[in-house]
Amino acid sequence: MADDVLFEFLHMEMVSHIYKDQASRGEMDKDRATCVSTLEGMGFRVGQGLIERFTKDSPSFKDDLDVMKFICKDFWINVFRKQIDNLRTNHQGTYVLQDNKFALLTQFSNGKQYLEEAPKYLAYSCGLVRGALSNLGMDCVVTAEVSLMPSCKFQVVIQKI
Amino acid sequence: MADDVLFEFLHMEMVSHIYKDQASRGEMDKDRATCVSTLEGMGFRVGQGLIERFTKDSPSFKDDLDVMKFICKDFWINVFRKQIDNLRTNHQGTYVLQDNKFALLTQFSNGKQYLEEAPKYLAYSCGLVRGALSNLGMDCVVTAEVSLMPSCKFQVVIQKI
Repeated sequence: MADDVLFEFLHMEMVSHIYKDQASRGEMDKDRATCVSTLEGMGFRVGQGLIERFTKDSPSFKDDLDVMKFICKDFWINVFRKQIDNLRTNHQGTYVLQDNKFALLTQFSNGKQYLEEAPKYLAYSCGLVRGALSNLGMDCVVTAEVSLMPSCKFQVVIQKI
Repeated sequence: MADDVLFEFLHMEMVSHIYKDQASRGEMDKDRATCVSTLEGMGFRVGQGLIERFTKDSPSFKDDLDVMKFICKDFWINVFRKQIDNLRTNHQGTYVLQDNKFALLTQFSNGKQYLEEAPKYLAYSCGLVRGALSNLGMDCVVTAEVSLMPSCKFQVVIQKI
């Protein structure tokens, strides 16, 4: 109980700090994009660190789908205390991970009034996923969308080189 | 295992972000003091939130020493995975909490070469303690010192009004 709260509170505080900090510099236009990118970058580095620990004793993965299943199950449980509820793929490098009760959104009302605030609480987690996948050799673009809180969809698009 | 790593990594990333950010503004002189105070403030608010959760089902405390014992045991275990190793007081409002293996310092070498880096990794935790105590009605000044990593001493001085 305690630790997810610890992580959630620290995350909230960090988001709030980064947005306030940006606002205090008076760069209103660049605001949102810069904050999202800062948070995403922090998540990316943490994701890289975490996946190294989590996969230390894991056998190697046989393909991309296998990696994604690991992210949906082991990684998600370790970070967010539950599995991804639904994983879908077009078998061409796009994956959609749906979490019906995303840990970092559960403190919000599930009404619509905070819906526009949601993206800033997802940037860090997008980075976490991108960092984890990057360390497993998969370059991806990770985005998230919320239509009804606290449910959330992460879209992972693998970048073919 | 996973969660303390999650918290530790996020904490590291946050410290690094706040120091880099400050440096990029070219305000070298104010640097250290501002960063420490930013981190301390974030810790303070998280500490306030955490203590509310942790004491939800606790009986009320009978005196300051009783509160400090709660911080050393329950609070510390929940946040840092172990108890404080030694609590000392002068019975006049000053308490010294010694942690012989402080979680946020264990990733450093225990040699002397990183000793001067240590304070920036303690500011957030000082804030955590101050925030927790503040919500329990005790206004304090909390400082920390390291003489041999990863051991660490927190000094709490209650402010008499």
